[in-house]
Amino acid sequence: MEGVASEAASLAGHLQLGKIVYVYDDNRITIDGSTDLSFSREDVARRFEAYGWQVERLEKGHDVEALHDALRRAEDEVERPSLILARTQIAHGSPGKQGTAASHGAPLGEDELRATKKNLGWPEDAFFLVPDEVRERFAEVRARGEELEAAWRERFRRYAGEHPDLAAEFERVMEGRLPEGWASSLPVFAPDNGPLATRSASGKVLNALAPVVPELVGGSADLTPSNNTELKGEPWLSAAQAGRNIHFGVREHAMGAVLSGLSLHRGLVPYGGTFLVFSDYMRPSIRMAALTGLPVVYVFTHDSIGVGEDGPTHQPVEHLTSLRAMPNLWVFRPADANETAAAWRVALERRDGPTALALSRQKLPVLRGDGTAPAESALRGGYVAARESGSGDPAMVLMATGSEVSLALEAREILEKEGIRTRVVSLPCLELFQEQDETYRNDVLPPQVRARVAVEAASSLGWERYAGDGGAIVALDRFGASAPGTVVFEKLGFSAAQVAARARALL
Amino acid sequence: MEGVASEAASLAGHLQLGKIVYVYDDNRITIDGSTDLSFSREDVARRFEAYGWQVERLEKGHDVEALHDALRRAEDEVERPSLILARTQIAHGSPGKQGTAASHGAPLGEDELRATKKNLGWPEDAFFLVPDEVRERFAEVRARGEELEAAWRERFRRYAGEHPDLAAEFERVMEGRLPEGWASSLPVFAPDNGPLATRSASGKVLNALAPVVPELVGGSADLTPSNNTELKGEPWLSAAQAGRNIHFGVREHAMGAVLSGLSLHRGLVPYGGTFLVFSDYMRPSIRMAALTGLPVVYVFTHDSIGVGEDGPTHQPVEHLTSLRAMPNLWVFRPADANETAAAWRVALERRDGPTALALSRQKLPVLRGDGTAPAESALRGGYVAARESGSGDPAMVLMATGSEVSLALEAREILEKEGIRTRVVSLPCLELFQEQDETYRNDVLPPQVRARVAVEAASSLGWERYAGDGGAIVALDRFGASAPGTVVFEKLGFSAAQVAARARALL
Repeated sequence: MEGVASEAASLAGHLQLGKIVYVYDDNRITIDGSTDLSFSREDVARRFEAYGWQVERLEKGHDVEALHDALRRAEDEVERPSLILARTQIAHGSPGKQGTAASHGAPLGEDELRATKKNLGWPEDAFFLVPDEVRERFAEVRARGEELEAAWRERFRRYAGEHPDLAAEFERVMEGRLPEGWASSLPVFAPDNGPLATRSASGKVLNALAPVVPELVGGSADLTPSNNTELKGEPWLSAAQAGRNIHFGVREHAMGAVLSGLSLHRGLVPYGGTFLVFSDYMRPSIRMAALTGLPVVYVFTHDSIGVGEDGPTHQPVEHLTSLRAMPNLWVFRPADANETAAAWRVALERRDGPTALALSRQKLPVLRGDGTAPAESALRGGYVAARESGSGDPAMVLMATGSEVSLALEAREILEKEGIRTRVVSLPCLELFQEQDETYRNDVLPPQVRARVAVEAASSLGWERYAGDGGAIVALDRFGASAPGTVVFEKLGFSAAQVAARARALL
Repeated sequence: MEGVASEAASLAGHLQLGKIVYVYDDNRITIDGSTDLSFSREDVARRFEAYGWQVERLEKGHDVEALHDALRRAEDEVERPSLILARTQIAHGSPGKQGTAASHGAPLGEDELRATKKNLGWPEDAFFLVPDEVRERFAEVRARGEELEAAWRERFRRYAGEHPDLAAEFERVMEGRLPEGWASSLPVFAPDNGPLATRSASGKVLNALAPVVPELVGGSADLTPSNNTELKGEPWLSAAQAGRNIHFGVREHAMGAVLSGLSLHRGLVPYGGTFLVFSDYMRPSIRMAALTGLPVVYVFTHDSIGVGEDGPTHQPVEHLTSLRAMPNLWVFRPADANETAAAWRVALERRDGPTALALSRQKLPVLRGDGTAPAESALRGGYVAARESGSGDPAMVLMATGSEVSLALEAREILEKEGIRTRVVSLPCLELFQEQDETYRNDVLPPQVRARVAVEAASSLGWERYAGDGGAIVALDRFGASAPGTVVFEKLGFSAAQVAARARALL
């Protein structure tokens, strides 16, 4: 019944994934009772046929021989995924509970367990009993598996002798190691080449990495031209051909699940794109990736009210905080093209969890930095983007992420002119910044400086952690509005003058 | 392609919602290009037939007469929802762009617009032109509508004469007014009757209100026995009968959308239940309700690691913060049975947006309160649940929500015995507390008392707002674990002794 199952089945049918076999344990029971209560009219076989699946009906779902034969036939079908509709009975064999919802979420209980064993001709006092016949069968299966594995290893050994480079490459990607020196292919963006949306920068980074990181595969949930996720010149995956570019269709939730599957398979570094506001559609998939510790990359573009005319339905507000609250997910919101390169570097080097990139639709200036290159500094999750004039502690610290960093830099100009010695700190990835040692963090954000303003065009929730009791937060605790992005920014409080005013008021 | 569309269509088929008619603008174009790129093999007609829909194929989707006839036939079919597959062409009539993805997200442009008008035999220089023939036709339609409305009003006037009580009741529910004195039916729970899970209390509240608030309708996404959402003795909605209880099936996302639809219809106060962790599945629906300002109630039970054995996949961690970050959504996490009654009161009295209730799986003591009834105090979103001993400012404030309030009360006992004058503040609804006047808020949380500990078995993100620079946060910035709930609580830092230790360390 879950929508994600429909999305995934539809995509599998489209791609003719003949190796997929579902066994549908069709016991007609849900927690609430019979499936008739909420699922009375649906012809599941017909639905899957409509998705382009082979469907087999197995009236006796508990007949192991029949199931075995059906699985063989499903294996033989290589051009379509297969669904085996196995008509079963929940708690089969339990005289008092079989076929009822009572056995769905609760144990049978001792008496019923005993009655069930008796009914099935099983020794009533035995627990965790493995009959000799089963033990012998499993020993056979193990021996066969060992033989097959040894044969495969021998085959790979021979292959490695003939193709040492390809074999080493195979082992590299399967172990999840990036190629030596890959990061030197990351582009460096010059401020003089003009402003660039971070989504565009992301597309350039991806395309610069594609030749040197061949395990990079991905796509978009039908927003390819907007997410800039296409690897140019690479083939598109289809039923007819392999390819590193994937059209996921308008199926964000399944896309997230597919990315996790690709990552679990190993040998691939998967990424997937949609608008940040639609990350909501795939949160359960993101959570599973975070919980499972999968290095998946989410390319979430159109990351604020800067989206403009599409209006509040398409303007994320709560999403940054919502994603940051998720354990083991890193959220990276780069301020410019070079921070975007750093974001990709962090995301690809991370081996134990997913990273979400929040990227702007609108163009942003390429930052000049403060002696060190932003791309280097951003690898620490937070850094001084512009130092205060003079020496000693700054009088004011402006903290921002993404598109609001350039805004903070403009506000700094205003404040410095008024003699307020102002530092701008870019905090593209709070999770990564928190991992830095205390000395570094205190160097970037001196604890004794309490006049701080956090600026982010999103929910304020969570920013007190950095702004502190003495600080202010310029954020957005309402839904956005439909107008050109620059107008929405200005009207909702995000201009250099307004940020400067909030800062000034703190002193 | 979106999963929610599948869920909704499946449910509509099950309920035989014959009044639903979809016109599928089957132009075979998505943003990425032809639907063949991601949707090549699906037989949509067959899929909807499998859901139990009537399906009509309209090869000439731009033939208005044919569409009109198809709509009439769809109206005539009252036992099944109807899908009209209208084969259309995107940007129909545009010689350069028709049938291409280029016309999906961008305007045609002046030249192409002119060419299109010419091609369609339309005056090339006219903008916003309404031909006389169309104007006359619309005038007819308006006149017919006025007649129909007048007839309906007359019918209702006669009905009101014959059945004044029923007519008044109809007007009351359509205007969204609750019945006079309804709140006096809210149950009051006595501490002496023993502990009670807030999900159980919620079920009792719902059932106490059901007879006096007949517009209350709802159900669960196949977790009825766990969510306690059943109105006992009321019929279940099915194709065969009307009913206030709804089996949504395992379809959280569609459930959220249906609740919004019921609310927009007016005359009904809808609620829907699932586990808090599965609120992720329905976030886009929750967001639409918040954005549209719909008074929908979400019953999210199993609200913490207290879920226990089901483990991290079923234990929410980031969800409270994630939901609190959403504009115009109120999150109410009651500490006991009486706060649960207050939560329902707040949720039903709210007219301009949705409320999410976060309810415990595990039993919680019914609080004795501090002179005033918790149910009354909780209506302000935050209140003093236990006052410090003696007079003057407390030395310590423990703040908590939900199941952690009783934990804070236990910790208070420990601290008071050590001479640390400790106040416990229950903060069941932060959004509501923020709406109180400053005097009240400062009375509950004296700004001069900086020794504060926030306790919530969920993400810490956002709690700095209340704990402040001088405070501490006892929270959970990792996924949970599978073990009995009491064990998980203790192991992850949630015991009275550990809370007391964190408090003590602040002094």
